[in-house]
Amino acid sequence: MQYSSKVIEEAVEQLASLPSIGRRSALRLVLSMLKRRPEEMERFAQAFLDLNSKIKYCKECHNISDEDTCSICNNPRRDKSLVCVVEDIRDVMAIENTRQFNGVYHVLGGIISPMEGIGPSDITIDSLVEKVNKGTVKEIILALSTTMEGDTTGFFIFRKLKEKTISISNIARGISVGDELEYADEVTLGRSILNRVPYDNSYGVAK
Amino acid sequence: MQYSSKVIEEAVEQLASLPSIGRRSALRLVLSMLKRRPEEMERFAQAFLDLNSKIKYCKECHNISDEDTCSICNNPRRDKSLVCVVEDIRDVMAIENTRQFNGVYHVLGGIISPMEGIGPSDITIDSLVEKVNKGTVKEIILALSTTMEGDTTGFFIFRKLKEKTISISNIARGISVGDELEYADEVTLGRSILNRVPYDNSYGVAK
Repeated sequence: MQYSSKVIEEAVEQLASLPSIGRRSALRLVLSMLKRRPEEMERFAQAFLDLNSKIKYCKECHNISDEDTCSICNNPRRDKSLVCVVEDIRDVMAIENTRQFNGVYHVLGGIISPMEGIGPSDITIDSLVEKVNKGTVKEIILALSTTMEGDTTGFFIFRKLKEKTISISNIARGISVGDELEYADEVTLGRSILNRVPYDNSYGVAK
Repeated sequence: MQYSSKVIEEAVEQLASLPSIGRRSALRLVLSMLKRRPEEMERFAQAFLDLNSKIKYCKECHNISDEDTCSICNNPRRDKSLVCVVEDIRDVMAIENTRQFNGVYHVLGGIISPMEGIGPSDITIDSLVEKVNKGTVKEIILALSTTMEGDTTGFFIFRKLKEKTISISNIARGISVGDELEYADEVTLGRSILNRVPYDNSYGVAK
């Protein structure tokens, strides 16, 4: 495409460098931005300057944070002996939204994926092992995606930790709440039968 | 959603303020950005600072430009007596890509849309009338979208200029090149029959 302005071209290129945004939609976004007030556009740019300079990672759980330790790890009412292992901040947010978890997290910052060249040393598995070695952790919950990469990562962590005196669990896989049985895929349905739970415990009520 | 970092939240809010980007995809984009090198993120933010401070509009045609006059209006080989009226820079780029037009443009910067509160005075129609009044323009081509708003805007301009001694044309509406007749909608097909052109001129060959 031929742009009449280098400034527009650069803004379009930058937006189009983000995943799933093409040049055509990037141009549409840039044009919509030009209708904004200067201080709004300033604020837009500032957000990404801040993203560059102010972002920190919690030294306990590796979640993105504004401080050295995140608000979850800092909270004295969270159970530090129960650690939920997740891929990234989005999973933390999703689990926090359920209000069902009172432990702390360990954010891997990725998932083992040979296809994308991500190996065990690229994510925070070593730091998880260290944390377990300190002896305060009693249970590890693996809350990873049900993909080949998620399963691989989970198995790798399980193998690293199975000798330790902690319990390691996987989040339950089964039929989603609200799903109709006939539309469930057979692997999920099969697993949900294999991993059936006693009826009086099946609605998540404490035993 | 609960973010563990205000910096992330602000970046997500800013991206999600763009049309057709929701908070969930905005978060995905922000996380992908965090994997970049600092200088790349700096460059991203800089592009939008520049967009704020460096953007200019050509004083002849109102197209977005880096200079006071755009490269098309500055080009001595472009025919200044032939003016193509378009909505925005995207239409200029689309027509330039055809390499079929050697005149200059007049960019309205929008289209009359009562639904969005855009009236004739919000776009550069007055400046177009002024340009015509100077007497150098011989023909105006209306190249607007075939929507109700486009037609309204075209009709408004036509009424403003019909007393002047210039010819005003509309771009041809008809069956797209490569389209099969049976799939064309009836309004388009009907118009293409009403506006039929002599066969020896129908492939755009000069008479």
